[in-house]
Amino acid sequence: MSQRDSANAIPRTPAVDPINPDSTTSATGARADALLRALATASAPGDGVTRLPFTSEHRAALDILRTLMTDAGLSVSLDAAGTLIGRQSGPPGSLTLLTGSHQDSVRHGGAFDGIMGVVLPVLALQQLRDAGVALPFAVEVLAFADEEGMRFPTALLGPRALAGTLDPAVLAMHDRDGVTLAAAMRDFGLDPDALPTLRRDPASVLGFVEVHIEQGPVLEQADEALGVVTAIAGIERHSVQLTGRASHAGTVPMALRRDAMAGAAELVSAVERHARDTPGLLANVGALDVWPNAANAIPGRVDLVVELRSDSDAVREAAGVAIADIAAAIAERRGLGITQSRTYFQTATPCAADFIDAMDAAVQQVGGAGLRLPSGAIHDASAMADLCPIGMLFVRCREGISHNPAEYASADDMALAVDAMAAFFRGLAARHEQPPLALL
Amino acid sequence: MSQRDSANAIPRTPAVDPINPDSTTSATGARADALLRALATASAPGDGVTRLPFTSEHRAALDILRTLMTDAGLSVSLDAAGTLIGRQSGPPGSLTLLTGSHQDSVRHGGAFDGIMGVVLPVLALQQLRDAGVALPFAVEVLAFADEEGMRFPTALLGPRALAGTLDPAVLAMHDRDGVTLAAAMRDFGLDPDALPTLRRDPASVLGFVEVHIEQGPVLEQADEALGVVTAIAGIERHSVQLTGRASHAGTVPMALRRDAMAGAAELVSAVERHARDTPGLLANVGALDVWPNAANAIPGRVDLVVELRSDSDAVREAAGVAIADIAAAIAERRGLGITQSRTYFQTATPCAADFIDAMDAAVQQVGGAGLRLPSGAIHDASAMADLCPIGMLFVRCREGISHNPAEYASADDMALAVDAMAAFFRGLAARHEQPPLALL
Repeated sequence: MSQRDSANAIPRTPAVDPINPDSTTSATGARADALLRALATASAPGDGVTRLPFTSEHRAALDILRTLMTDAGLSVSLDAAGTLIGRQSGPPGSLTLLTGSHQDSVRHGGAFDGIMGVVLPVLALQQLRDAGVALPFAVEVLAFADEEGMRFPTALLGPRALAGTLDPAVLAMHDRDGVTLAAAMRDFGLDPDALPTLRRDPASVLGFVEVHIEQGPVLEQADEALGVVTAIAGIERHSVQLTGRASHAGTVPMALRRDAMAGAAELVSAVERHARDTPGLLANVGALDVWPNAANAIPGRVDLVVELRSDSDAVREAAGVAIADIAAAIAERRGLGITQSRTYFQTATPCAADFIDAMDAAVQQVGGAGLRLPSGAIHDASAMADLCPIGMLFVRCREGISHNPAEYASADDMALAVDAMAAFFRGLAARHEQPPLALL
Repeated sequence: MSQRDSANAIPRTPAVDPINPDSTTSATGARADALLRALATASAPGDGVTRLPFTSEHRAALDILRTLMTDAGLSVSLDAAGTLIGRQSGPPGSLTLLTGSHQDSVRHGGAFDGIMGVVLPVLALQQLRDAGVALPFAVEVLAFADEEGMRFPTALLGPRALAGTLDPAVLAMHDRDGVTLAAAMRDFGLDPDALPTLRRDPASVLGFVEVHIEQGPVLEQADEALGVVTAIAGIERHSVQLTGRASHAGTVPMALRRDAMAGAAELVSAVERHARDTPGLLANVGALDVWPNAANAIPGRVDLVVELRSDSDAVREAAGVAIADIAAAIAERRGLGITQSRTYFQTATPCAADFIDAMDAAVQQVGGAGLRLPSGAIHDASAMADLCPIGMLFVRCREGISHNPAEYASADDMALAVDAMAAFFRGLAARHEQPPLALL
């Protein structure tokens, strides 16, 4: 029996049946929903959820998660980076599969981004435990302290500590109130000096698999609850400054103008066209400032940022070069000055083929199509990729709205995600040719 | 002899000869230049010229102008609006030709905008007087207090008082220091209560002719020192708000975006194209604001202002309708919300055909081509048009730069303008079929 056949042989859980509202799925979904609602109360005042790292809200969220993990039979610890770890042991000498996501939110964010990726794997492990399934590997569910980078001008402290890529210099960074990261951690009961000891041996780790709300509209448009992430897109940003001549809009004939805004408009349209014509490329001009920005003044200067994303580094790099050429040609033709520079880039992080295949099989087992899509946003998995293979499961997001109090994933979709994660764990067990010690 | 022949019969002054640097022109130009440099010292501290109305700088400028006018044989008075008037009487019962411009500047402006239009006509009258020419009409050179509207949120006090269009409510407006216009005027020795008495009888006035620096690049591009203004352009402004959906730039496929900036860019390009394709139309998108204006956020909203100018009201009105339709179509096609409204409009003010012809002849007499152009900016003449026919003479502006310390008109060009104004006065005399009492 091939691995694939083995995975497919795992029966669909009753959970998937949409006709029976009293199915296991509904109970699982209701539990996920209740847990996320409870966790959403661990928030600073104001609209939506504001839960920054190393705060009393962080502590309140960990209290809820600790109880959840303990109830699911996990042994719970807090590491020196503030990562809450719920561990289910495997057989002696077995490798460890890591999963989880971040506990923190943006300011006035939603109840799902990050934290859902901690809750659902715990429920999946509990589902397996309740069904008497033992896995041939250990599993750790991680609740990282800080992925959003809202409090300190850094992020991904937890996964970077595990991967051994943490720059200790970040400990000296200050929040708005002048509190350093090191001081905030100490105040939270952590020992920043112990961070280097957190580094994991890559040979001990099977990989890291993250469940996350999609934060985009692709699954909703495709009428799919779940999606399999192929890669976390690479990004580059180009700062472009176009300079013309600021002049009186009433006194300069059209043909004699050097209008920085007209040039910028041409560039914005060209960027959009290029991305529409290039499969796998996303492009955005989201930041744009005009000087002097007065109705009766021909704009003398426009600063803008072109952001490019792709799961293919080759596609992204080629687009960066092409768009820089387009911008230069626009400036040349219009007699505008131009300075442009690539101010930031980050290569794409592919998900491991094995994880993609196993997640695809798991999603299909729970009734999904196994739609594959890249992640345009950064996740904890981005930093975990420096340690081990990564995989991601996306959950449908209502109207694509995220980082917003209106962010929403349905209880039914979360239940499917729990089932899919359970199926993934079991499929992975089968693929490792170490069959689960017990079958449902 | 026809009027035209009569005008053409006036000999060119030696002034025009560029080969002879010691000609009369050079002396006139040098005098104009020296006067404007002296007037530029009547300025608040800082770069360039800052001369706001009813200030000590205003008073210092009037002192210089009073001496200039007196030396030129004019009788000088200050009216209740703070307009300095230098009057050369005509024959008993004769009409009055008004000329002049404003004494005030923008903050950190140049030495020519406005004030040059006071100095040059005085020099022209002096040139005629020196040549023994008497005119069959009275001439008044007016130095208006406030055209730029820098100190109080109103402007054109002097010409509006003469035209009887002044709204007394403006007297209650405050400057930055809380001083009302009425108080500032009283402090300057004026009686605001007397403003209504300034209204002139249109039947007593031949017209108003203003010399002004072009503030644009047209004459320089055409290699012409002087230009004849055909009209002061009408203006309309449209506030446009495009609303899309602000989303994460990494998570929304190009085809699912509702990007307000991409729509705005298309509109900016369409506005520029429409103006380039429409003779006599100027269009500008000078003010544009993006929300949330972050590199990684698809813009959810753009506010912008479309400004249209033309010396033809029909052209401007048609463009306003066409561009509103274009904007609506862009929004419709892109699934963007749109609100747009015409927030401001002002019809064009044509110059009087007689004045255009007479100025054209005068410019040609001093060696110019008689290039005709509209004025895109507002001038004192705009308000004087409510009283009487208007005409304008533009003087070449270096690089089109105005409202800036670098604003510059050459001594040679100013000398030509003085000669042209003298020729204009004489030509007008001939056209009135009242030949000058003495000929050169």
